[in-house]
Amino acid sequence: MTKKIILDCDPGHDDAIALLLAHGNPDIELVAVTTVVGNQTLEKVTRNALSVARIAGITGVPFAAGCPRPLVRAIETAPDIHGETGLDGPVLPEPTLELDRRHAVDLIIDTVMSHEPGEITIVPTAGLTNIALAARKEPRIVERVREVVLMGGGYHEGNWSAVAEFNIIIDPEAAHIVFNEKWPVTMVGLDLTHQALATPEVAEKIAAVGTKPARFVGELLDFFGASYKEAQGFEYPPVHDPCAVAYVIDPDVMTVRKAPVDIELTGGLTLGMTVTDFRSPAPADCHTQVAVELDHERFWNLVVDALERIGDVEA
Amino acid sequence: MTKKIILDCDPGHDDAIALLLAHGNPDIELVAVTTVVGNQTLEKVTRNALSVARIAGITGVPFAAGCPRPLVRAIETAPDIHGETGLDGPVLPEPTLELDRRHAVDLIIDTVMSHEPGEITIVPTAGLTNIALAARKEPRIVERVREVVLMGGGYHEGNWSAVAEFNIIIDPEAAHIVFNEKWPVTMVGLDLTHQALATPEVAEKIAAVGTKPARFVGELLDFFGASYKEAQGFEYPPVHDPCAVAYVIDPDVMTVRKAPVDIELTGGLTLGMTVTDFRSPAPADCHTQVAVELDHERFWNLVVDALERIGDVEA
Amino acid sequence: MTKKIILDCDPGHDDAIALLLAHGNPDIELVAVTTVVGNQTLEKVTRNALSVARIAGITGVPFAAGCPRPLVRAIETAPDIHGETGLDGPVLPEPTLELDRRHAVDLIIDTVMSHEPGEITIVPTAGLTNIALAARKEPRIVERVREVVLMGGGYHEGNWSAVAEFNIIIDPEAAHIVFNEKWPVTMVGLDLTHQALATPEVAEKIAAVGTKPARFVGELLDFFGASYKEAQGFEYPPVHDPCAVAYVIDPDVMTVRKAPVDIELTGGLTLGMTVTDFRSPAPADCHTQVAVELDHERFWNLVVDALERIGDVEA
Amino acid sequence: MTKKIILDCDPGHDDAIALLLAHGNPDIELVAVTTVVGNQTLEKVTRNALSVARIAGITGVPFAAGCPRPLVRAIETAPDIHGETGLDGPVLPEPTLELDRRHAVDLIIDTVMSHEPGEITIVPTAGLTNIALAARKEPRIVERVREVVLMGGGYHEGNWSAVAEFNIIIDPEAAHIVFNEKWPVTMVGLDLTHQALATPEVAEKIAAVGTKPARFVGELLDFFGASYKEAQGFEYPPVHDPCAVAYVIDPDVMTVRKAPVDIELTGGLTLGMTVTDFRSPAPADCHTQVAVELDHERFWNLVVDALERIGDVEA
Repeated sequence: MTKKIILDCDPGHDDAIALLLAHGNPDIELVAVTTVVGNQTLEKVTRNALSVARIAGITGVPFAAGCPRPLVRAIETAPDIHGETGLDGPVLPEPTLELDRRHAVDLIIDTVMSHEPGEITIVPTAGLTNIALAARKEPRIVERVREVVLMGGGYHEGNWSAVAEFNIIIDPEAAHIVFNEKWPVTMVGLDLTHQALATPEVAEKIAAVGTKPARFVGELLDFFGASYKEAQGFEYPPVHDPCAVAYVIDPDVMTVRKAPVDIELTGGLTLGMTVTDFRSPAPADCHTQVAVELDHERFWNLVVDALERIGDVEA
Repeated sequence: MTKKIILDCDPGHDDAIALLLAHGNPDIELVAVTTVVGNQTLEKVTRNALSVARIAGITGVPFAAGCPRPLVRAIETAPDIHGETGLDGPVLPEPTLELDRRHAVDLIIDTVMSHEPGEITIVPTAGLTNIALAARKEPRIVERVREVVLMGGGYHEGNWSAVAEFNIIIDPEAAHIVFNEKWPVTMVGLDLTHQALATPEVAEKIAAVGTKPARFVGELLDFFGASYKEAQGFEYPPVHDPCAVAYVIDPDVMTVRKAPVDIELTGGLTLGMTVTDFRSPAPADCHTQVAVELDHERFWNLVVDALERIGDVEA
Repeated sequence: MTKKIILDCDPGHDDAIALLLAHGNPDIELVAVTTVVGNQTLEKVTRNALSVARIAGITGVPFAAGCPRPLVRAIETAPDIHGETGLDGPVLPEPTLELDRRHAVDLIIDTVMSHEPGEITIVPTAGLTNIALAARKEPRIVERVREVVLMGGGYHEGNWSAVAEFNIIIDPEAAHIVFNEKWPVTMVGLDLTHQALATPEVAEKIAAVGTKPARFVGELLDFFGASYKEAQGFEYPPVHDPCAVAYVIDPDVMTVRKAPVDIELTGGLTLGMTVTDFRSPAPADCHTQVAVELDHERFWNLVVDALERIGDVEA
Repeated sequence: MTKKIILDCDPGHDDAIALLLAHGNPDIELVAVTTVVGNQTLEKVTRNALSVARIAGITGVPFAAGCPRPLVRAIETAPDIHGETGLDGPVLPEPTLELDRRHAVDLIIDTVMSHEPGEITIVPTAGLTNIALAARKEPRIVERVREVVLMGGGYHEGNWSAVAEFNIIIDPEAAHIVFNEKWPVTMVGLDLTHQALATPEVAEKIAAVGTKPARFVGELLDFFGASYKEAQGFEYPPVHDPCAVAYVIDPDVMTVRKAPVDIELTGGLTLGMTVTDFRSPAPADCHTQVAVELDHERFWNLVVDALERIGDVEA
């Protein structure tokens, strides 16, 4: 049975690949795509999402723009990683899809409430502003959602500070809301995604697909790889966001561990840390789990397979 | 010219009087009433608002329910002041108005966006969750609103802690959002409202109006007075919320002072404090001002006058 | 009966006047003077203290240097108020007194422990680093000290931030220690000391004394007045530190109010605030009180009288 | 060449073993032992230290008591791990050594200042109150000390909270002082010490020594093992404190990694965390390093060897 997901994203190179993976994989039905400020401004990431939709040949799926700024904090973007457009590198086509007229928060609420309980999985790969607002505006979505599988945080790794990750630290109050609601939350954090490196072998396999979307992914990885080498000293770029989608497709692509996770809101050194308590076995009612170890080959095979299925798109 | 206001409230004894004042005063046009968790649960304060509408004879004004909980913090209500119903004391009639189907956040947004810029004043007399969400969901309301005149905070007084007031401390993140947006904000805080005491002379004047709504106010003040004596040692109860409405009606009912105000979010002793900087003259772009001194007689005359204009309502 | 005090200071213009007041007043016996980083570096304020001792003709009193930096925070000094030397303005003579070889912390401890219980009053007019360390190193001083009368803080006023005062914010952890020990603490804060303005009439009275020490005070006030006008917009300078000494001499020189006071250590906007709870009558075991209203004339008469008693000093 | 160490401790089962290791190992010269509140009250841990000295046959080494409480926080002890005496399990002999009359802080300062620069290593195996006070009272010790090798903290593990360790969280301000001074600091934290398990094989080797001190250690481990099983679910107890001593004896007993470490003072969930930044190679002036991997056999051989050298003590 296919899984219906809402992808909440801020494309962003790895968001773009997440979108392609979700679209190309036969076990996922993309029922909505929503955007939020993050890697770049809302305006830029929304346009990027629509351009990627055209590249991927996505039609019939509502795309809606959401929050242009975090709940409480000032806007922080990541041009050193994603460039000035948020998707530097490839030349992007003009979007052909039109945005849904609803606010992303309302599209999320409408989508969840108009499906059966347990039908919709939310997959955030950006700051959690939209998801938090949706949960506050319509609290009934919380028990209706199947689960939240998010890229963000890290139990032992940080990137925007020693112990905090970008998607969480840019809106820690939103993250606090999402992690403290009682829906099942899977945190696919840096501990996992730093294993999802786009090695030369991976790049070769993607190039071998030989289609336009695959070439687009190749160009994304070229830029992303250079950024990560320059900004954070990575030899190969960690491709974060598709990991969350991959977990929805195939939970065996990674190991996970149940543990309580909470968000630090006041720490001078630890703001936005996803504080994970491994001291004891997780309590019976623990609704959070964290991703631990990636099956690297299986993961990238999912990406390559999705690109093959997408094939060459008439744009 | 009448001033169009959205009253965002959590009735609440003083909220009820604020509603009567707004309804009865000829210089105010009540264009929407929204409710939010605060003095009691959302369900209770919403029912209270509708009952008060019936008592006051309010018709043709949309009432909408908003957020059932604060943005980040756990729910905190005030039963020691307002009782288990949120409006203990009088017997409340069954509501006759029907709730608007929209969420309060959307009613606020729709109301502001469908009026001319500068036409709508928002008057929050509760926690600021609804207003904050509205500003985040539709940022364009900020420059379109005429001003925000709120009951909450205090520059030198606290009630829920040594230095914080209930409406702010129950949702400090929301207050941070509202005070940091660049709309004009008038903080009618405890420094002012602790002057708005319902003395025996005030109670007599209200009793002398002789109508059902006036008797209702008398019963509210009886309960409120007993609560405040018991819980906070006040000889006469401070009637906070109508002060904000009174300022909209007649700015001369109080003196105000321009000063930067910000909300403390991390203090162990000072969470939710409305930190006000009086050290220097306020900068030219200062968009916040605080209420300082009340003209007690003028204020209560406005309340009595409103009750007289409302007269005896067929409920 | 004279009161024996330890003056812990960081001269500083107003510290210098506090020292002269303590020395010249017959009801005070100065049993030790200790210095601590604050208005300037430890080295500078220690030298200043010794120079002032020579100007005042103080002999036979041990002076000891204490902590060169706050407990946890980085050093912050106040050159905009006190100049580069910490006592800019007058020409200072070479010190003739030699420093006691003990650390200020040990001098404080030795002095308190070698006197009878209830005999020694500690008068800090600087950051509280020395006093806090003494209380931690030898906890028995706490119940042996008569009281602590300190210049610092403010219940409704700040100078180094909107709500915090310099002596507290430069070492808030030390202040936390001092205010939370169970000795009697009188906080002579900005609420009080901003009333202790050196008006032209005051300056005239001091000038009329006609001695070298009085001329020295005149020069201090000239510089201090210019600093305060420039840095904080005061018409006349508030002369903080002697107020604490004056309270020890004559408690009727000001009104005080019992209230719990605690120090904010984590607030983003309120770090170092002396959070004072006036909501209810102070509990029976409340050991803190705050200075409220100064008898301006009585205060300055004490200063002038001390200068007259000191007379002309052979230096 | 032997290394001269000051052992600052709060015995404590593992502190007792650390003391035995330091005493019995020929490469260590114990020049002072100081005690501080921690596992139990100052009075109890000081008595325990003296009893252990008698058991170990330590003479000619000054023992001094230090701070009875942390700098800022309230006292927190660990009776669930160490029992009501702080050293539950064995029957302790009456102490025969007399305490040095100096305060531990002064003994530390005197010891460091009376030796050559680079001669003294400080080995804290408790809260850092004494060390912090010493550094504040006599800042010159910082550059005079060879290094600080402490048991405390953890870069990826916590025990008293999800991310903080007991020795740090009981006095985080003291830890902040110690980690921020520019002496070399080696943090032997939980990441390392949770590898130092007293397995049955270890217990057998210790039993095989066959002396009174070895039997004493056996009894300590019996109690400690039961505590750790009960309180934290460990199969075998982690014997923290001797690991720090072992590193001084033989740095090859563990691997270490240079990385900046700082102490979180304001986090609601992360107070007292030793925040370690592994994102980039440590900067050239990095003065902190963290212990990573223990050579379990080599470590326990050091302990057994020390017990053999101590032999049977006439007490």
